[in-house]
Amino acid sequence: MKTINGGVCAAKGFKASGIYCGIKMPSIDNQNPDKPHKNDICMLKSDMVCTTAAVYTQNKVKGAPITVTKANLEKSGNKAIAVIANSKNANTCNADGIEKAEKMCELTANELNIPKEQVVVASTGVIGLVLPIEPVEKAVPILAEKLDYNGNKEAASAIMTTDTVMKEYAVEFEIGGRICHLGGMAKGSGMIHPNMATTLNFITTDCAISYALLQKALSDVVQVTYNCLSVDGDTSTNDMVCLMANGMAENKIIDCPGEEYETFKAALYEVMANLTRMLAKDGEGATKLVMCEVNGAKDEATAVTCAKSVICSPLVKTAMFGADANCGRILGAIGYADIEIDPLKIDVSYVSSKGSIDVCKGGYVIEFSEEKAKEILLDDEVTIKVNLNAGKYGITAYGCDLTYDYVKINGDYRS
Amino acid sequence: MKTINGGVCAAKGFKASGIYCGIKMPSIDNQNPDKPHKNDICMLKSDMVCTTAAVYTQNKVKGAPITVTKANLEKSGNKAIAVIANSKNANTCNADGIEKAEKMCELTANELNIPKEQVVVASTGVIGLVLPIEPVEKAVPILAEKLDYNGNKEAASAIMTTDTVMKEYAVEFEIGGRICHLGGMAKGSGMIHPNMATTLNFITTDCAISYALLQKALSDVVQVTYNCLSVDGDTSTNDMVCLMANGMAENKIIDCPGEEYETFKAALYEVMANLTRMLAKDGEGATKLVMCEVNGAKDEATAVTCAKSVICSPLVKTAMFGADANCGRILGAIGYADIEIDPLKIDVSYVSSKGSIDVCKGGYVIEFSEEKAKEILLDDEVTIKVNLNAGKYGITAYGCDLTYDYVKINGDYRS
Repeated sequence: MKTINGGVCAAKGFKASGIYCGIKMPSIDNQNPDKPHKNDICMLKSDMVCTTAAVYTQNKVKGAPITVTKANLEKSGNKAIAVIANSKNANTCNADGIEKAEKMCELTANELNIPKEQVVVASTGVIGLVLPIEPVEKAVPILAEKLDYNGNKEAASAIMTTDTVMKEYAVEFEIGGRICHLGGMAKGSGMIHPNMATTLNFITTDCAISYALLQKALSDVVQVTYNCLSVDGDTSTNDMVCLMANGMAENKIIDCPGEEYETFKAALYEVMANLTRMLAKDGEGATKLVMCEVNGAKDEATAVTCAKSVICSPLVKTAMFGADANCGRILGAIGYADIEIDPLKIDVSYVSSKGSIDVCKGGYVIEFSEEKAKEILLDDEVTIKVNLNAGKYGITAYGCDLTYDYVKINGDYRS
Repeated sequence: MKTINGGVCAAKGFKASGIYCGIKMPSIDNQNPDKPHKNDICMLKSDMVCTTAAVYTQNKVKGAPITVTKANLEKSGNKAIAVIANSKNANTCNADGIEKAEKMCELTANELNIPKEQVVVASTGVIGLVLPIEPVEKAVPILAEKLDYNGNKEAASAIMTTDTVMKEYAVEFEIGGRICHLGGMAKGSGMIHPNMATTLNFITTDCAISYALLQKALSDVVQVTYNCLSVDGDTSTNDMVCLMANGMAENKIIDCPGEEYETFKAALYEVMANLTRMLAKDGEGATKLVMCEVNGAKDEATAVTCAKSVICSPLVKTAMFGADANCGRILGAIGYADIEIDPLKIDVSYVSSKGSIDVCKGGYVIEFSEEKAKEILLDDEVTIKVNLNAGKYGITAYGCDLTYDYVKINGDYRS
């Protein structure tokens, strides 16, 4: 397996485009005429119909696009050809939300001459603001016109909200002598605490694989990637990962578990784990990526809950911002996690590119060099290593520090 | 029932004292010689032995004082005469923690000439720092000497950490023709997300009441007061509420449920609810008290989980800081709470002393005056009212906004 460029266009037969269409009310959007408009709507299209798997937010308040996409994939038997997605407005908690999301599919279907139930629709942005459909109506023909086999960056920028960097990752791998590709784009910076799903993510592959295995691979990999990610503990209403496989690599279809399925799953893990890392590092206001690697857990669920409790703790997050080796807060966060542990078996150390240092052994904080700890924690990627010494399971959770800028960004997000 | 002064000394026969003894390493503590030292250790003593109820943190990593107090009350049959409590060091996650906590009890018991298992010990402050016992040894005789029926403020200031205001509340009520008093002090500003217990709280009463009913009243009232409070979602390792009743009001002992028990419970609720409010309003870095009043829930547990999810959401908290009427975040937080709800029945409004405004009806955000909403949210006490329209249960949860100062305070708490 090797890393390649191309994001959602890395796989054969996928075109993408993205433009600015003015989803946000112009009166608000034009307050700063010197700031160039970033793309706010994108389209993705496969040359051939795709077997499509998806996971959605578990939030009971769901965005209208989630409801419509789910219904479309049910009607089409999990087949899709195109995606239409916008930022700046989540089209959620609006009385006309479903109608607008369906309209977005219809406009796209008519323009591309495909069945509207083969369109995936997604929206991200402010909740509870009526989505203006006129900009979308104007945008769709332009997006269709601009569809390009190298359009991945135009699309990836269109789904960004408070993101400061574009998030794309792609790999190449071999199945039965055929070269396959799998790549994706993600958006997200705040309201990130995925539960069974995540923030907006679109992943494409040219690998031929059955729907059952495609969905299984996605559901399994989500558990150990996006579901181990938290920026602020807030689970979004519009989270979705959509994985489209068009089979254009012409490999013999993967339709039973085995080596080839494992190869595919490893490629999917590689892309999703890297996107997860990027999402954490670009968390709203974050100055650093904070990972918690838990080992020695009695099962995977314990490892996940423990690691997430640490990276979600505001006190751990602020300590990481201050590069303060306040290990008591880590022990506190492990202690209130809903897991069975023996507090007197916990070891903790800090690791970064600057070195590593043990700070807790058997539940007790030990003497350590504050100076060395500070140096380690001042790095922009820090791992908190926890050993529960109670089993063989391990996991890494991804988060970031809590900073002044998180407060600033979210104190008045809508204006 | 009426509100009175006196905190933990409001009830007959309770003396208190507090001094500065230098718990924190002097080298750290003396960095600013112009800043007067605040009290860091206190003592509380009843003239008569007290029936004593307590609830403790559910964090599996527990402070040594919690373990020792629990053991003492078990040994003494829930009887206590004195409390010794310090701030600046939590005496938690230290190999010699139990030994030091027991030593604090022993020193106090010897000085006051009482059995050591009738001493309640509590510590709050930095976790994982060895507690220096010498300052405590020097302090205990002075604390005993200074015990005073009006010493409540000296004691209340001694348990403060990042608290900016002292938290005391007391009431007077009548049981069987006798005037009774019940008052308490609390500390806490960060690491506040009580679970079955709370931050350090000491409550005293001269009302005579059986242990069974005293503990029942405390456990019940905790559920609807401290357990509905969150500053930052971090449950402390050292949370404790200790309720001491010395019977000196000479009422006929309350030993069965009924009107008198309800009167006592109402007094306890009044004191604990007011302390809860004070704790929330003085949350680290907070500029305002944010309450979420949930009504129309199918049961109390649903109401509590829903209200806490709203006040715990970092996105709601930052929006409150920015006085931004971003109702979508409230709906998002309700949606990810682990409760059964019908999203299309939710109503939301904002209320403060500046007025009230409806922002969501039946799950959809409605049109409202942003100007008016801003004015309401700029108040320093704001209530988010949620109606689930699914039953008759209601509750209020207490929290605060998330500000730059929370990050500042916690970025380098230990130095």
